[in-house]
Amino acid sequence: MGVVVSLEKQSGKTGRDEGINRLVKLTEADMARVNTMILSRTGSDVTMIPEVANHLISSGGKRLRPMLTLATAALSNYQGEGHVKLAASVEFMHTATLLHDDVVDESEMRRGKQAARMLWGNEASVLVGDFLLGQAFKMMVEVGSLTCLDILSTAAAVIAEGEVMQLGAAKNTATTEDDYLAVIRAKTAALFAAAAEVGPVLAGLDKTAQAACRSYGMNLGVAFQLIDDALDYGGTSNALGKNVGDDFREGKITLPVVLAYRRGNDEERAFWRRTLTEARIEDGDLDRAIGLMRQHKSLEDTVDRARHYGAMAKDALGLFPASPMRLALEEAVDFCVSRAY
Amino acid sequence: MGVVVSLEKQSGKTGRDEGINRLVKLTEADMARVNTMILSRTGSDVTMIPEVANHLISSGGKRLRPMLTLATAALSNYQGEGHVKLAASVEFMHTATLLHDDVVDESEMRRGKQAARMLWGNEASVLVGDFLLGQAFKMMVEVGSLTCLDILSTAAAVIAEGEVMQLGAAKNTATTEDDYLAVIRAKTAALFAAAAEVGPVLAGLDKTAQAACRSYGMNLGVAFQLIDDALDYGGTSNALGKNVGDDFREGKITLPVVLAYRRGNDEERAFWRRTLTEARIEDGDLDRAIGLMRQHKSLEDTVDRARHYGAMAKDALGLFPASPMRLALEEAVDFCVSRAY
Repeated sequence: MGVVVSLEKQSGKTGRDEGINRLVKLTEADMARVNTMILSRTGSDVTMIPEVANHLISSGGKRLRPMLTLATAALSNYQGEGHVKLAASVEFMHTATLLHDDVVDESEMRRGKQAARMLWGNEASVLVGDFLLGQAFKMMVEVGSLTCLDILSTAAAVIAEGEVMQLGAAKNTATTEDDYLAVIRAKTAALFAAAAEVGPVLAGLDKTAQAACRSYGMNLGVAFQLIDDALDYGGTSNALGKNVGDDFREGKITLPVVLAYRRGNDEERAFWRRTLTEARIEDGDLDRAIGLMRQHKSLEDTVDRARHYGAMAKDALGLFPASPMRLALEEAVDFCVSRAY
Repeated sequence: MGVVVSLEKQSGKTGRDEGINRLVKLTEADMARVNTMILSRTGSDVTMIPEVANHLISSGGKRLRPMLTLATAALSNYQGEGHVKLAASVEFMHTATLLHDDVVDESEMRRGKQAARMLWGNEASVLVGDFLLGQAFKMMVEVGSLTCLDILSTAAAVIAEGEVMQLGAAKNTATTEDDYLAVIRAKTAALFAAAAEVGPVLAGLDKTAQAACRSYGMNLGVAFQLIDDALDYGGTSNALGKNVGDDFREGKITLPVVLAYRRGNDEERAFWRRTLTEARIEDGDLDRAIGLMRQHKSLEDTVDRARHYGAMAKDALGLFPASPMRLALEEAVDFCVSRAY
């Protein structure tokens, strides 16, 4: 792999600062085929189905999850065609989850657009989600790998389990960091892990390679969700992005809250219970919440935890020989973590 | 198969009047194993999952769909173990559909009990439904037949498609009989068809046997739904059961309505549009609706249509040699159709 090493050397230190671009470029050709597959599989004579599905699918998500499948398949030197359908399945599973989540959370917006349920109703969001799940399984069956089917169907059950777990933890400020981690492993990281794991399985690599890619995906997923949760309170920068405060208004107990609550005094804990458990939110409460998080460094520490999981993700790939794809996957970790500042 | 024939002869004419009992008895031992499987697969550390799932699963549905899988496997002389997990999968798919349907239809009752969503909320109903779907696919994967996976995952997508189709047809009194049939084929009959089809596939029978069982299930499913729709207006007897009028209050366009609307005069059509399309229902309207249906014989004719599909279901099994199981499946058709009077 001399060429690869020399490439790394050529690009020198800046080679590490590509963000997600290298991964996007290396998976570009396959991703175009995934997009075609996605469009063809949302087709239905029932016109509401492609309308609802494409509203969300075309709304510019990063497609990070299917990208992981394409990337780990390439990392494993897979030469077949199955990765395209599995990547499309992964995106369908993710889209189905988003449609159902918006119903569960009564969200009005998604990716800067009106949520599908605001335009077509909760009914359509539930049912089109079910349709996409069905189509996802059909595509997996077409690929024909029982191991991949096992990995992805297990993820589907675990994701739903995680969402129910989150319902149970909702508004409970006594949630521990372990509880919180169990929730995000299930509801977010399980799909990242499955998406990354099926690449080496398709390629027929051994259990070690399979476990490595799974671990990469799982830890990346945890890091990704931790950063998302920090961003919901503005991250560690002073420039506030959009959607800041959604979790606060919904009473979601995320790590920034868990840490601030545990580090706060009685009066502060009363504040968290009033706003999150009792949902009695007044003007200025979001600012106070962010202020308390900054004071207790709970946003910094959430990002720190994310960095920790990110490091595990990168180390997981250590047994793969150096290559542009491995580098791209490592950079993707840094990109996900660095979104928060 | 001399024993079989003599059994039929012994029981004589009354052999045809067993209703569903013969099928229940012949599948009893396997069904006990299905029930154990179902209980073990709703288990989760997330306690809300078994609570919600078992509320519905233990509420005394007839388990007709998993029974079809067990019965066609036995009819096909299947000797393995896969039918138990596939039957449990079929029941999970059905339960997931019910949980989601109740959210979509905003139903308050299900099988004479409060709907799960009234006790645990819409969120839990959506998510536990997703969990059961995931578990259903896991069990199918464990059985390991890609053909069965294809049949059941296709059914999952078609069911959701049928439900969306029904949303589109909702409250539209101009729905044709063909439109209506397309909806019930997809939302109800597809699962009956898939449940019956996987039996001969597991047993390794040829395409002809597979198509026969599929056709049996599909036509039985259509007949079953037609009778359900007639029962929602009291069927053809004068004794009204419970739940009469649910479809009317929800503005659902079913065959009894389609026929009454087409056979009615302008004033009657205005009545149907006011009550179903505009949802302006006054005291006495349900009685008037039932009166119009009786006048135009739309309930009798709905049952007649069901009898037609039931006859096709029975004929579909014609190539299987006479046996107690085949007789039981034929009697099950008569049982489903005769519920309406």
